[in-house]
Amino acid sequence: MLEALKVIVCEANLALARHGLVTLTWGNVSGIDRARGLLVIKPSGVPYDALTPEAMTVTDLDGKWVEGPCAPSSDTPTHAVLYQAFPNVGGVVHTHSVYATAFAQAAREIPCLGTTHADHFHGAVPVARIPASAEVCDQYERHIGLLIVERFRGLDPDAVPGVLAAGHGPFVWGPDPLKAVENAVALEAVAQRAAATFALRPDIAPLPGYLLDKHYGRKHGPGAYYGQGNDR
Amino acid sequence: MLEALKVIVCEANLALARHGLVTLTWGNVSGIDRARGLLVIKPSGVPYDALTPEAMTVTDLDGKWVEGPCAPSSDTPTHAVLYQAFPNVGGVVHTHSVYATAFAQAAREIPCLGTTHADHFHGAVPVARIPASAEVCDQYERHIGLLIVERFRGLDPDAVPGVLAAGHGPFVWGPDPLKAVENAVALEAVAQRAAATFALRPDIAPLPGYLLDKHYGRKHGPGAYYGQGNDR
Amino acid sequence: MLEALKVIVCEANLALARHGLVTLTWGNVSGIDRARGLLVIKPSGVPYDALTPEAMTVTDLDGKWVEGPCAPSSDTPTHAVLYQAFPNVGGVVHTHSVYATAFAQAAREIPCLGTTHADHFHGAVPVARIPASAEVCDQYERHIGLLIVERFRGLDPDAVPGVLAAGHGPFVWGPDPLKAVENAVALEAVAQRAAATFALRPDIAPLPGYLLDKHYGRKHGPGAYYGQGNDR
Amino acid sequence: MLEALKVIVCEANLALARHGLVTLTWGNVSGIDRARGLLVIKPSGVPYDALTPEAMTVTDLDGKWVEGPCAPSSDTPTHAVLYQAFPNVGGVVHTHSVYATAFAQAAREIPCLGTTHADHFHGAVPVARIPASAEVCDQYERHIGLLIVERFRGLDPDAVPGVLAAGHGPFVWGPDPLKAVENAVALEAVAQRAAATFALRPDIAPLPGYLLDKHYGRKHGPGAYYGQGNDR
Repeated sequence: MLEALKVIVCEANLALARHGLVTLTWGNVSGIDRARGLLVIKPSGVPYDALTPEAMTVTDLDGKWVEGPCAPSSDTPTHAVLYQAFPNVGGVVHTHSVYATAFAQAAREIPCLGTTHADHFHGAVPVARIPASAEVCDQYERHIGLLIVERFRGLDPDAVPGVLAAGHGPFVWGPDPLKAVENAVALEAVAQRAAATFALRPDIAPLPGYLLDKHYGRKHGPGAYYGQGNDR
Repeated sequence: MLEALKVIVCEANLALARHGLVTLTWGNVSGIDRARGLLVIKPSGVPYDALTPEAMTVTDLDGKWVEGPCAPSSDTPTHAVLYQAFPNVGGVVHTHSVYATAFAQAAREIPCLGTTHADHFHGAVPVARIPASAEVCDQYERHIGLLIVERFRGLDPDAVPGVLAAGHGPFVWGPDPLKAVENAVALEAVAQRAAATFALRPDIAPLPGYLLDKHYGRKHGPGAYYGQGNDR
Repeated sequence: MLEALKVIVCEANLALARHGLVTLTWGNVSGIDRARGLLVIKPSGVPYDALTPEAMTVTDLDGKWVEGPCAPSSDTPTHAVLYQAFPNVGGVVHTHSVYATAFAQAAREIPCLGTTHADHFHGAVPVARIPASAEVCDQYERHIGLLIVERFRGLDPDAVPGVLAAGHGPFVWGPDPLKAVENAVALEAVAQRAAATFALRPDIAPLPGYLLDKHYGRKHGPGAYYGQGNDR
Repeated sequence: MLEALKVIVCEANLALARHGLVTLTWGNVSGIDRARGLLVIKPSGVPYDALTPEAMTVTDLDGKWVEGPCAPSSDTPTHAVLYQAFPNVGGVVHTHSVYATAFAQAAREIPCLGTTHADHFHGAVPVARIPASAEVCDQYERHIGLLIVERFRGLDPDAVPGVLAAGHGPFVWGPDPLKAVENAVALEAVAQRAAATFALRPDIAPLPGYLLDKHYGRKHGPGAYYGQGNDR
């Protein structure tokens, strides 16, 4: 069942670890098969060096375990909500990477301080609020997803493919699982550079809008000219 | 003598080094065989790349050298006190890992600033005070253990499996030596993220209690649903 | 075409990654053949583990794609302007390395705080200003180069072989591509140490001029006596 | 000539790189044969992966090149002065390691903030002043050594086996080259933890003297009981 997607999701989880974004078993990547309405996600609490495509778990769009030898990541309902709300998302990543988590714990959005940021996120990486007590008691992980969707009212999740869940850590996405991992790597890099920038100049202003637009547009959309295979 | 435990304790010491928590020979892991009233611990000052199960040292519950080719870690009396005071502890770890040591040197407890912390420590990681002169002159290492036990009056060592010895560094424990190492990895990760969070927002408040309880409960106790093999 | 230079430029790009200056595909090295008026540069957006000499791209001195299977780095026009303005430069490097980028994002020059700096940069590493809107709309990457050249009026690019493009990151150069990579490694090392120094003493003064001159002169120019093959 | 010492000095230089204390070619280790009045030191500017025992350089006690295919490190006269002034020193190390260099550039001594420090340095790691102009013009590297010796008036170089040369970086020593490298590793670890401690608590006081004495005494001198082969 969904063998090709399992291979990709497994590879994306291993890439997450290889990029140094994972401590112990903290982190997971999923992918969606929209035609069949099914997710493939890392099993819960399984060490990265034991991951194989066969160990991946299949769930439905509510995060309910459909197939696979292991129970799905406890964060599956969050992933599921994001897939339902953001129609172009093909892969979702959750990590506790150092600097993105520090911004999440500080409940500070990451403003666009440079082209590194602008190349990947078209504007500040926002913060989703800490869930209220009632949102924690019942369907906690689903509420985390709903709070992210709430925060993205008026924002384009395709242009800002990530968020900081306050007091928790980053959720990042992309058109497919490997692109979502790439965005998670970019977010951590951006967060580390932003933290170091604030240490050097606490009152630094964001990049001018025209430069943000320029850099984001170099890599994304019809006028993109970064990389290969673009109209040049 | 205690061959199986020696294999585990050796592996746990090597895992400590592999996780980057060890500089030179600074760090040690022990395990207990409660039925026989014996400890197995890393020998003192031996480099990690020379560790084998046979090199491990056996001591009694007062930390006295019983068997093995090498003298036990000089921290053995601290381990021994912790095993005597905390009946569910099966493994103890001591390191000088960077950020946990920084908090210990600053004599600042680590408040729970996020779910990374809440997943492993049910509340702030406390600080045990610096020993008084008399406590240093006589049975210094035993007093370090006693100060930790003193600090845990009113605290549950199973729910907060670690402490910062002020001016020194972390001691961490768990139900077995490998779980204790996992908690030491978690403590260093939590300390690093907390340091980066305080740099971004010095006055950050701890996570609400209901979220701390939720995350700790996801992984620990009868209602746990993180990982495999739980009632779901 | 330019086979020997392609080998060197490929090796220099791989060295950049090996030195930890590269995240994802962010970074590029070029080299020039001044006799033929041609550049060799990394292709745009190609992962470092897929780089071979044959994959390198040849452009003219305006950055126009002349040969090679892949489109050149989008930063090529910046490199081209630097080669045209700085006659002794044989290699150019661009990275988003952590601390140099943090100084660039903070728009703070890096003063010479120690001999590590003085050994490689004869004075502060300057900041080139953020481009104005009109400079971004038209020939953006070329303008980045022109702003660097503007900033070096009155400075010697051979003695200060690097710059921080504000809101962006470092550009570094040298007499050949491998020396340019060495200077990029030095700049990141200098930036990291400077950031840590400012954290310890925000008001630290630069090194006295006579010590800057001494250290720079130990390694560079007719009186150099560092390394092998000097008159001693 | 001095084959055994060359093997040790080469191994110590490689250990320096393996411990992550070296960027590019910045760093060197030497050893002394006091009976013959000769030093063995790393050749100047030679990459670490090209080092072999045969490549090591022999100098006299003034740092003058006596034997070996390559010119000695430009820092040789500093090493030579330290050997002459400190009769128990058998190995000297110089690095530009990140945090020790940051303290050196900030001209801040490293107070003893914890047992990690106390285990290796019996008191603060002091700062030697920046050389005056005249001390730089003539025999600069020799003056660096003399300034260190000046700073150690009233200090015991065997109990505090390292110093921060202001605006430059650490010099560290020990009874033999490998012990000197160990002390250099310890100094960098101590400096990193001190920097992180100051960030958390700028006004932190040093460890009480009785605890400093205790920890230093556990590892050094007639009452030592850390490691193997002590009277217990």
